[in-house]
Amino acid sequence: MKQMLPFLLVLVMAFSAQAKMVTQAVEYQQDGTVLEGHLAYDDAFKGKRPGVMVVHEFWGLNDYAKKRAEQVAALGYVAFACDLYGKGVVTKDPKEAAGHAAHLRGTPLLRQRARAGLDVLAKHKLVDPPHLAALGYCLGGTTVLELGYSGAGLKGVASFHGGLSVPKPEDKAIKAKILVMHGADDPLIKSEEIAAFQEAMRKTGADWQMIYYGGAVHSFTNPDADKAGVKGVAYNAAADRRSWQHLKDFLKELFSSP
Amino acid sequence: MKQMLPFLLVLVMAFSAQAKMVTQAVEYQQDGTVLEGHLAYDDAFKGKRPGVMVVHEFWGLNDYAKKRAEQVAALGYVAFACDLYGKGVVTKDPKEAAGHAAHLRGTPLLRQRARAGLDVLAKHKLVDPPHLAALGYCLGGTTVLELGYSGAGLKGVASFHGGLSVPKPEDKAIKAKILVMHGADDPLIKSEEIAAFQEAMRKTGADWQMIYYGGAVHSFTNPDADKAGVKGVAYNAAADRRSWQHLKDFLKELFSSP
Repeated sequence: MKQMLPFLLVLVMAFSAQAKMVTQAVEYQQDGTVLEGHLAYDDAFKGKRPGVMVVHEFWGLNDYAKKRAEQVAALGYVAFACDLYGKGVVTKDPKEAAGHAAHLRGTPLLRQRARAGLDVLAKHKLVDPPHLAALGYCLGGTTVLELGYSGAGLKGVASFHGGLSVPKPEDKAIKAKILVMHGADDPLIKSEEIAAFQEAMRKTGADWQMIYYGGAVHSFTNPDADKAGVKGVAYNAAADRRSWQHLKDFLKELFSSP
Repeated sequence: MKQMLPFLLVLVMAFSAQAKMVTQAVEYQQDGTVLEGHLAYDDAFKGKRPGVMVVHEFWGLNDYAKKRAEQVAALGYVAFACDLYGKGVVTKDPKEAAGHAAHLRGTPLLRQRARAGLDVLAKHKLVDPPHLAALGYCLGGTTVLELGYSGAGLKGVASFHGGLSVPKPEDKAIKAKILVMHGADDPLIKSEEIAAFQEAMRKTGADWQMIYYGGAVHSFTNPDADKAGVKGVAYNAAADRRSWQHLKDFLKELFSSP
């Protein structure tokens, strides 16, 4: 019995360490534009830990993206939901959202805005800077691919129902591991886009995985997706649950490897 | 302290319950053909549990398939590596293997042989018959898809680098969940075959997922794959590790859902 005591003590400590989620609005700038992200970490964990950036859908940094950051933080990471659009620029109107996205998509500004967010995360006192990853939804999925292609020092990037961009000719060898989680019936991601992405991954020799969730369409992870009333955009509980598990596996691999 | 004691006792019991793998050759028949499978379960687990069938590659029931069954058993399931070819019919010669496979592939005999193995598993005293799944490698992957299409009462089927068959017109609604784990550079699985499979899954409304592992070719899970000296057949450690994790996630989902 006596020799069990130290073990028991550790156990009691573990059980008494309760989650204490700390969240914080963080204002920062990118080339003069004021942005505001949402930082989250669990104060019950001690010491430095990996940092994971979360990139929002084309709506902007809404509660959905913030909640995802908190879910990531609950896994034991420092999470930062960055802001691609500008402080307070967020909408529920698909046309307005498309306008904001169009301002960034396919331009150098997308990578710059994302990089500004990543810098905030990397400099946080609790983050162990070599251990960084990024995940994103919809436009945010495209964004994290671009970040991965850009050589931003990420261990890995994960896209949920994101548009599938390809590396630029001037991009160096891709070091970030890539996980694409795709709704197999997503009408917004064209088959030519998928083929081009996979071909580019083969050519560059990137470490990539792509998961097709049968029956899932665009925005399958967002419980509010159906509210937008956009065709081909809907929540899918099974694909949401499965992709979250696959993300957890991915992060675990990224940060346990030497 | 006193109130911790029952909890502590449970812990001590858990720590003293060590894995005790039981394996057993099981002879059975299918329409007069004598077959011999390899059963495995961990005797440290008590009571009935889900049963998982393992279906071998085109080599026949070799040590690789047996080892996989033991790995599945170590997860807490009763595992049965069935035999599609006949007792002792196993080879290292690709031509001979191809001949054995050709005898079954695309014929009703494939499903019959697989079904005979599943019956052995379902009747085992430790198996809880509504909780059945099947996984297979290469030809075995095709086989478990066929089993899933045939309405064999499986909760799910998982294929590792398997050929992608489609359901027959007379097949009923597919109740088994389907997970296909695919080497993204597998030259033995043609793109038309993949397209036909995905189209069939959409049409039937099956619950399906397909994972592409970048850089992986055929037999990516088998450490001995390269020994065969067959082009487009090779081991891939990352894809092996990842697909095993994805399998574990899948089995967990199958057997925890109501």
